[in-house]
Amino acid sequence: MLTPAHIATAVSAALAEDAPWGDITVHALIPVEATASATLVAREAGVLSGIDVFAAAFRLTDAEVLVDLHAEDGEAFAAGDVLATVTGPAGSVLTAERVALNFTQRMSGIASLTRSYVEAVAHTSARITDTRKTTPGLRAFERHAVASGGGRNHRFSLSDAVMAKDNHLAVLLQQSGLGVTDALLAARARLGHTTHVEVEVDRLDQIPAVLDAGVDTIMLDNFSLAELREGVALIAGRAVVEASGGVSLETVAAIAETGVDVISVGALTHSARAIDLGLDMSLEVGPVSDADG
Amino acid sequence: MLTPAHIATAVSAALAEDAPWGDITVHALIPVEATASATLVAREAGVLSGIDVFAAAFRLTDAEVLVDLHAEDGEAFAAGDVLATVTGPAGSVLTAERVALNFTQRMSGIASLTRSYVEAVAHTSARITDTRKTTPGLRAFERHAVASGGGRNHRFSLSDAVMAKDNHLAVLLQQSGLGVTDALLAARARLGHTTHVEVEVDRLDQIPAVLDAGVDTIMLDNFSLAELREGVALIAGRAVVEASGGVSLETVAAIAETGVDVISVGALTHSARAIDLGLDMSLEVGPVSDADG
Amino acid sequence: MLTPAHIATAVSAALAEDAPWGDITVHALIPVEATASATLVAREAGVLSGIDVFAAAFRLTDAEVLVDLHAEDGEAFAAGDVLATVTGPAGSVLTAERVALNFTQRMSGIASLTRSYVEAVAHTSARITDTRKTTPGLRAFERHAVASGGGRNHRFSLSDAVMAKDNHLAVLLQQSGLGVTDALLAARARLGHTTHVEVEVDRLDQIPAVLDAGVDTIMLDNFSLAELREGVALIAGRAVVEASGGVSLETVAAIAETGVDVISVGALTHSARAIDLGLDMSLEVGPVSDADG
Amino acid sequence: MLTPAHIATAVSAALAEDAPWGDITVHALIPVEATASATLVAREAGVLSGIDVFAAAFRLTDAEVLVDLHAEDGEAFAAGDVLATVTGPAGSVLTAERVALNFTQRMSGIASLTRSYVEAVAHTSARITDTRKTTPGLRAFERHAVASGGGRNHRFSLSDAVMAKDNHLAVLLQQSGLGVTDALLAARARLGHTTHVEVEVDRLDQIPAVLDAGVDTIMLDNFSLAELREGVALIAGRAVVEASGGVSLETVAAIAETGVDVISVGALTHSARAIDLGLDMSLEVGPVSDADG
Amino acid sequence: MLTPAHIATAVSAALAEDAPWGDITVHALIPVEATASATLVAREAGVLSGIDVFAAAFRLTDAEVLVDLHAEDGEAFAAGDVLATVTGPAGSVLTAERVALNFTQRMSGIASLTRSYVEAVAHTSARITDTRKTTPGLRAFERHAVASGGGRNHRFSLSDAVMAKDNHLAVLLQQSGLGVTDALLAARARLGHTTHVEVEVDRLDQIPAVLDAGVDTIMLDNFSLAELREGVALIAGRAVVEASGGVSLETVAAIAETGVDVISVGALTHSARAIDLGLDMSLEVGPVSDADG
Amino acid sequence: MLTPAHIATAVSAALAEDAPWGDITVHALIPVEATASATLVAREAGVLSGIDVFAAAFRLTDAEVLVDLHAEDGEAFAAGDVLATVTGPAGSVLTAERVALNFTQRMSGIASLTRSYVEAVAHTSARITDTRKTTPGLRAFERHAVASGGGRNHRFSLSDAVMAKDNHLAVLLQQSGLGVTDALLAARARLGHTTHVEVEVDRLDQIPAVLDAGVDTIMLDNFSLAELREGVALIAGRAVVEASGGVSLETVAAIAETGVDVISVGALTHSARAIDLGLDMSLEVGPVSDADG
Repeated sequence: MLTPAHIATAVSAALAEDAPWGDITVHALIPVEATASATLVAREAGVLSGIDVFAAAFRLTDAEVLVDLHAEDGEAFAAGDVLATVTGPAGSVLTAERVALNFTQRMSGIASLTRSYVEAVAHTSARITDTRKTTPGLRAFERHAVASGGGRNHRFSLSDAVMAKDNHLAVLLQQSGLGVTDALLAARARLGHTTHVEVEVDRLDQIPAVLDAGVDTIMLDNFSLAELREGVALIAGRAVVEASGGVSLETVAAIAETGVDVISVGALTHSARAIDLGLDMSLEVGPVSDADG
Repeated sequence: MLTPAHIATAVSAALAEDAPWGDITVHALIPVEATASATLVAREAGVLSGIDVFAAAFRLTDAEVLVDLHAEDGEAFAAGDVLATVTGPAGSVLTAERVALNFTQRMSGIASLTRSYVEAVAHTSARITDTRKTTPGLRAFERHAVASGGGRNHRFSLSDAVMAKDNHLAVLLQQSGLGVTDALLAARARLGHTTHVEVEVDRLDQIPAVLDAGVDTIMLDNFSLAELREGVALIAGRAVVEASGGVSLETVAAIAETGVDVISVGALTHSARAIDLGLDMSLEVGPVSDADG
Repeated sequence: MLTPAHIATAVSAALAEDAPWGDITVHALIPVEATASATLVAREAGVLSGIDVFAAAFRLTDAEVLVDLHAEDGEAFAAGDVLATVTGPAGSVLTAERVALNFTQRMSGIASLTRSYVEAVAHTSARITDTRKTTPGLRAFERHAVASGGGRNHRFSLSDAVMAKDNHLAVLLQQSGLGVTDALLAARARLGHTTHVEVEVDRLDQIPAVLDAGVDTIMLDNFSLAELREGVALIAGRAVVEASGGVSLETVAAIAETGVDVISVGALTHSARAIDLGLDMSLEVGPVSDADG
Repeated sequence: MLTPAHIATAVSAALAEDAPWGDITVHALIPVEATASATLVAREAGVLSGIDVFAAAFRLTDAEVLVDLHAEDGEAFAAGDVLATVTGPAGSVLTAERVALNFTQRMSGIASLTRSYVEAVAHTSARITDTRKTTPGLRAFERHAVASGGGRNHRFSLSDAVMAKDNHLAVLLQQSGLGVTDALLAARARLGHTTHVEVEVDRLDQIPAVLDAGVDTIMLDNFSLAELREGVALIAGRAVVEASGGVSLETVAAIAETGVDVISVGALTHSARAIDLGLDMSLEVGPVSDADG
Repeated sequence: MLTPAHIATAVSAALAEDAPWGDITVHALIPVEATASATLVAREAGVLSGIDVFAAAFRLTDAEVLVDLHAEDGEAFAAGDVLATVTGPAGSVLTAERVALNFTQRMSGIASLTRSYVEAVAHTSARITDTRKTTPGLRAFERHAVASGGGRNHRFSLSDAVMAKDNHLAVLLQQSGLGVTDALLAARARLGHTTHVEVEVDRLDQIPAVLDAGVDTIMLDNFSLAELREGVALIAGRAVVEASGGVSLETVAAIAETGVDVISVGALTHSARAIDLGLDMSLEVGPVSDADG
Repeated sequence: MLTPAHIATAVSAALAEDAPWGDITVHALIPVEATASATLVAREAGVLSGIDVFAAAFRLTDAEVLVDLHAEDGEAFAAGDVLATVTGPAGSVLTAERVALNFTQRMSGIASLTRSYVEAVAHTSARITDTRKTTPGLRAFERHAVASGGGRNHRFSLSDAVMAKDNHLAVLLQQSGLGVTDALLAARARLGHTTHVEVEVDRLDQIPAVLDAGVDTIMLDNFSLAELREGVALIAGRAVVEASGGVSLETVAAIAETGVDVISVGALTHSARAIDLGLDMSLEVGPVSDADG
């Protein structure tokens, strides 16, 4: 979840990164009494995410800037739609513009891509989920964007759920001398009762031993469609089934139709393209006295 | 420039984001005495950037992990190339993997895209440059990645050069009652002597007044190729000429051939795809005693 | 889990809190060349926790202080046992003493109290767990201390597992107009697949509806022993059973014998008494030249 | 003294520790439009401390939560007393509850224990004071709680007064080759004129040499009642007399009756039990529209 | 430029430095209900700078203190002038006084000294500029003060313009084996197009090679007046000319008359004397009720 | 006292302030393999302070730079004296130079001015002390510099000693309705036993009432020499006597001869001139291979 504290912290840091000693262009060119209004306009279709972050960029630059929102996160928009209106001191509007857009374009890009995946599997019960392949420092923002697009969030970090991958199991088995089932049962006994345990398997024959350890989720990694169907049948509801690897907009529907519960897609966050949004300064630029009159 | 302080700060923050209370999978499954070695392998061709950041992710997780670099930033690699070797406590290698890859894949993605643009204009004297359309919090990293790809960096922030865009000029002229030349001269007089002044124009007929103000760079925004050529001729070396808008891998060579000095490309940072790099755990997993023996 | 980053951050902050402008007593009285050695001695029996934090307090005060550990976290000790030896500049040893003890005495107090509970239920399969009733800012330290005593950790924070208490359910039902089962199923659908869901019930008759929602853990709050037995029978392995409320060293064994899986005890962290540990400065105080000779 | 800056910093950190990515239970179960009111009720008698911290936990979670205080720090309360009323968005009230209670229960526990000591010596002129045995990171809060209970604060840190203990003196004498009086006079000459100097003695025969050095306070450490009386007579008003060691609720009155000026009690902060306070959600839960209507 | 974020950060830090645990004098002596008003009075003539910082010191101490400004940065004042009025809780006014004055006296000292230099060269076109010889941590404040005095700011930091001094060139030439012109041209090619390049020369004969490299500014370091005149003639408008070294209030007019464009003066920030400003508490001290009545 | 933590924090911040994205001059001009050595040379006579801060500026820029100190804080030096030698990568030496000098020149300026005052009163028993008129953010550094010059430090902040000035007393008397002695006694009863209480008086007739309250120090503010002598006689050793106001190098000896114990001088920190120190790059600049050979 994206909290107000996340927004305040990251947006303030981004504003400081972009104008550590102020905006010298505004300082040299824009009279302090000039006011302006501007609209956030979609230049292409997409799904909105980060509209509160957009507003915060202006508000944290100058408390006198008013931001009026015309859409909310999760809403689809078409090219030309006006998503928000910004009014206030012209210099502040100009200073905050780039940071506001950098956040919202990226987040809306993720939401839009996620929405494509979600719609592609809408005829099944499979859910689309993200991964830990997020931009360093922006995980809360990108996870929120996935949710805006209708996706679900995977574990937030290495601290809140167990995910045993092939390398973990290779080390575990070699070091402990135990079989998979016993090794996993021993590991589980070291964890708190609220900790979800997920295990990755690469082959169908690995599933029974993992199931016997009572794990919560089994991830079928890079399985063919036939193998996925067989895996779902084998697990038979005794664990959540997650499919991973080789997922694209072309393949996701077929994967979902195998009956898996969850499909995780790294590309949602690591390779989404920014959505083109623009801030159009309107004609009615004026001095503060006009605005008041 | 990417400083050691940037790397230490951002990588520490990313590690804390990814494992605020440690890696519970490693805690439950991996014996502390297990060691491992792993290689960073390219899964596709590209240009490397962020190899020091990759190393820092392991070093800041555990000072006992050794990272041996086999390539340096700016080097091109092919699919299958081994770029680095990582050796040390198995748990620490596994914990740091994702953060190390998240940085390096993104940075190498930007470097690789930049390299494509740079090569496309290599037969001209035009230089490829980035913009302020960077990921919030990672500007120093993304700017470094552009440099790894052979691009040049534009102004780092709103504080270190003036860039007067159409909206700035619209407000300035309306508020001051001055003409463009006089308004720009007055603005320049308010600035220090080391401040570079760049002005954006949308039409050829705006150029003379801007030139008369003695600005350092003129940005020709969304000009046709014919207009760019005419603009270059009109400016005739009296200012740096920057082309902006409508730049893609398909169009960049023709733009460069018009004689402009600089071409700025927002896509370098806002829409680069992560390059696929993987960490392959090698077979020689062993206990610490083996490593010592 | 207690990470090196937690220790570095909290111990540095504690040292700064205790000597923001240095230790003026040491400055005025202790020659910089004086060295000393000291031992950490138990003044009463207990279970050790925080010995790495103890060492860090000296190391972060002065890298020249050497700390030799004679026991590790989780180990029981008797009055008089020597747990660590500290050697180095006398002034630094004296400056760091109080912070080192403040952490270790508190953590060992929690570990010792936890151990008493764990031993009281050792003849059953019930596990002792902590709560969120921890000291603000020190949760990672107190959770580690519980683990040192043999307890398990509950969810770390409000962000990593769902715990629906009576007040949550009261609001949910009133607002949604749904029954308990449907309301919980709808809530679960909004969560990621790795999120554990625990629900608190106050009466036996609330259990069936909660079970039907497929929750992971049911907390039986303030149940009598007879009710706990009945609850365990009713749930019959379909969810983890947690007992809470009215737990003391006198009652915990009987509660465990009802067959519950987990017993949570707020007192472990909110009311543990510090264990009495002392730092005994040894006689062989000497100047640095002696130490080198 | 506990400043607004202390409260803002520590409470924000505690809220982040308890819900780094928000409260997922509230997110999944509580409609944003639900409102609630709740009362802070004493479950046992005690002395209040930290009521402003309690209020800050809600206010910093959500500025729309209103907290109405019915008692102030230092006030005694009985079981059942209502100390504050909280009204606002139901989710925010539920999210902030634990942090608010964790602070106030601990602080009121310290205030209540301090009050017991203060009342035990009320028939004498002795003052009860705390020590540096406080929880790392919370000294300002615990010192404030001692004041709420009627105690006085000792030096805040190693930087604001000199306290020469046995180990300091042992090193000082061995290294300087001076006698106690001369060594202390030399140390004092290195200090500013506003620095208070306190010296600990273990035996009566150490007092005259310390007195001759003109120190401000003499601490009689682990003295018998008879020795304390003799020490008070010997010092005769020429320095403040502090008794330390072996102080409990059983012994403190007799210690005070010896005529000492100050009695320092480490247990006030290192071993106080949390006072049982609860937040009772009231029945009039409703949607925001009801609240407004 | 001095941003609101700079002011909030530095003033908060200064207030914490000056009262980490509150103002114990105010705590012990001043009733919370007492109010007071005070005026900021100049005790000598000067130029004002930092009046917003002055106001922030009170506002950040206590939001109930009102500060009414009677002058703005850059304004000259005479001894006895009242520059601001402060009204509010007496304790808060007293607590914030010293921090408010420490900033404003220092900044006004710099502004006043700068104004003397600016006036001394007012009959020429030369501009007075500062250097990087500023107080660590306060560069933004001191640069703003220079601007208040009518000076211009040099590059803000090592990151925003190139300044090649004698030592840089000595290393560069020895290492590269190139001549000055070629070495500088090669260096420039590594920089972005918005980076200003300034080169320091010590002798007239160094100028032609530097000019041939097309640098933006040439600094004539420690030149005699005759040499400065010759340098200006030699450069002939092809680069900005900066004079540096040996600049004092006695010499600056003559230096300016040589025709240089910019004169940099380290003393503006490293050796300015604080201007004497005082806060006069007025007679109408009263309780809050009076203030409201 | 200036702690290693102060130095690390403030020097790192200053380096970041001076090169937030690195030193672009060094980046463009200095080969990474170039090494250099340089000496810190006094350009005028003075007293050294901050030599550890000087060393830290280089060490924190690049751990490979070696700094060899030839003098220590408190030592007097003459023009031409070599105070330290710096050796290492040429780029790092050049990057750190200005920050190193900015700290050390300022601190040595304060130490030198303090030494002048201390020597002027050396024939008396009066001690020179500083005030709270320090540079925001640098109090620990400036206080250390005063100590380097032989001065003593006044209270560090508003939190560690009481100083009741005329305005405090005016408010206190008006609000409490008590006389001075009773009001001060009541205030003292609210403080801990280690808190030093100092009271400022403007006239001789105010002294008896203050003395009767048993305060620790009486400050005689802006007294004539005759009044100071009378004040000293009146106080007669029952409190420390501090003279304040109108103190200059011309007047300080006569003030000291009146018999006061302490003379506080705001100018030590608010108006000291930086001492001229320079870093001379030596001729033996060479590549790393030379240095190793």
